[in-house]
Amino acid sequence: MVERETKSIHTTPGKYVEPGQDYDRDTQYIEDRITTDARDGWPVEAGRYRLIAARACPWANRAIIVRRLLGLEDAISLGTPGPVHDERSWTFDLDPDGVDPVLGIERLQDAYFARFRDYPRGITVPAIVDVPTGAVVTNNFPQITLDFSTQWTQFHRDGAPDLYPEALRSEIDEVAELIYQDVNNGVYRAGFAGSQRSYERAYTTLFSRLDWLEDRLSTQRFLVGDTITEADVRLFTTLVRFDAVYHGHFKCNRNKLSELPALWGYARDLFQTPGFGDTIDFQQIKDHYYQVHRDINPSGIVPLGPDASAWLTEHGREELGGRPFGDGTPPAPPRDGEKVPSIR
Amino acid sequence: MVERETKSIHTTPGKYVEPGQDYDRDTQYIEDRITTDARDGWPVEAGRYRLIAARACPWANRAIIVRRLLGLEDAISLGTPGPVHDERSWTFDLDPDGVDPVLGIERLQDAYFARFRDYPRGITVPAIVDVPTGAVVTNNFPQITLDFSTQWTQFHRDGAPDLYPEALRSEIDEVAELIYQDVNNGVYRAGFAGSQRSYERAYTTLFSRLDWLEDRLSTQRFLVGDTITEADVRLFTTLVRFDAVYHGHFKCNRNKLSELPALWGYARDLFQTPGFGDTIDFQQIKDHYYQVHRDINPSGIVPLGPDASAWLTEHGREELGGRPFGDGTPPAPPRDGEKVPSIR
Repeated sequence: MVERETKSIHTTPGKYVEPGQDYDRDTQYIEDRITTDARDGWPVEAGRYRLIAARACPWANRAIIVRRLLGLEDAISLGTPGPVHDERSWTFDLDPDGVDPVLGIERLQDAYFARFRDYPRGITVPAIVDVPTGAVVTNNFPQITLDFSTQWTQFHRDGAPDLYPEALRSEIDEVAELIYQDVNNGVYRAGFAGSQRSYERAYTTLFSRLDWLEDRLSTQRFLVGDTITEADVRLFTTLVRFDAVYHGHFKCNRNKLSELPALWGYARDLFQTPGFGDTIDFQQIKDHYYQVHRDINPSGIVPLGPDASAWLTEHGREELGGRPFGDGTPPAPPRDGEKVPSIR
Repeated sequence: MVERETKSIHTTPGKYVEPGQDYDRDTQYIEDRITTDARDGWPVEAGRYRLIAARACPWANRAIIVRRLLGLEDAISLGTPGPVHDERSWTFDLDPDGVDPVLGIERLQDAYFARFRDYPRGITVPAIVDVPTGAVVTNNFPQITLDFSTQWTQFHRDGAPDLYPEALRSEIDEVAELIYQDVNNGVYRAGFAGSQRSYERAYTTLFSRLDWLEDRLSTQRFLVGDTITEADVRLFTTLVRFDAVYHGHFKCNRNKLSELPALWGYARDLFQTPGFGDTIDFQQIKDHYYQVHRDINPSGIVPLGPDASAWLTEHGREELGGRPFGDGTPPAPPRDGEKVPSIR
């Protein structure tokens, strides 16, 4: 998750709100890419890299979903830091002895320091680590998923969907950019606003964009084209957190997601599609936001609601047509060790 | 509002949450009564007393509603402190020059000190002040509204409803007690809980009671009998604040009120009944909770949502029968100087 470190390492630990200021995300990442032509020195190679992605974090969640949809589990292993990190770094507190079993480290920052000794920016997830050297290759989350789709094709499973089809790339990019600014990052701009004015600006922009999306999704099943794409992955990871976290914790409360019929149907449709909902751990999500952002929730108390079983209700979106996986097929269930708790 | 002073005067100013503790409301009030027999030295007398009641506060709201329903406006005048008080007292910051025009004071505490020089407890609303001496007679909110109904009958308007009919008193008392413990005070016990366990206990009790109420109100229009009573007034002032404040700010988020069909219909039915919704100022309500409780909302940012216009939608509760005012009639619209802003 990106927001944390900008604020915690560079200013005051545990502090996300800057009084009087807009929330300003640090978007400078380690931009190396892993490509078939190894242009940055990082060749596509099965078994060499490890994806470090906390289930709590919406940016990391994208990479977990795309890895599942494309069937990259054998090619790229997955390490999952716990939801509640300390002031310095995401930690592997869910693993035996608090150590990532492949990298052998307790703190993700060690992998950043293995790359740059005095790495000064946020210790963010998702990060891809080069296992032989233990060094972070990249934490540039918008590129990571695109490269999974376009560079790792030789390791895609049979029936993997094309999440970034060439003919639709400009439309996907355009929609994804609007969603990033107004929704994915918009909820943070509302929640971490340092002034009433800054909050109200973010809130207004967010709900205008959600209304625009509601309208778009009332006549089409997916955001771009008639199959799931990268754009859907990016919108989903924010929507799935909306009622559980953003509505209350970030004051995005014009309405719940469940009060926007098309978006709510769309989000449940994706949730019930293999590769999406089976990556979601609502308890980790809530624990992360409510326990880590102590300057907006000093008590650290984690709400019991809302009732997550609503995600499993019928959505009726099949009526709009569309073929989730196009000519492909859904992924098999998550493997042992990568399952999330069932919704009670 | 009662909770504030307990915590602010007796412990740390602006502090409501005691780490590790349940929320414990100080329920010791000045228990004098104004009665027809003047047993405590306070006779029923038109023009002598002033009701001080902040529109933000649910306990004060009860008294404002009952005064309107019974038509006691000419007999008992109304002073309304603003939503955002300082550390010491509710203040008359909405009045010209910040002074109550009848009592001539800036802070409600002056009326408490006029009664007891070193009054050590909370400076709460509602309070009834004896205008000639400027001293608080009582702040015992559960008794204030009952005495409006039973002691001030000679000043009731023509057509005033009987909010506390003799034949139903034991049932009203019983229902009101359950509602007080689990709902009226229950939301505070959730919101000001000092531990996860304490929060979860309050949350569970609250929603069990709301489910019980949902069931009860699915077959009858009002809580007790077939007309509005004191019990309805007491439940209404919490329900009307639920989605605007308690759902997010107090983490009472199993669902919104608007997701409980019978309770939501019931609450809108009352809201649209003269004497209820015309006492509600949603902006004051939100300003109060979000700006005053800085230890659960340090930024003081006030959410823009939810959309209050939903309160004006059709509720269909007439189908259940019932006669809101029994053999009586609704009150006339609020007088000038006592109107609240319309819902936009």
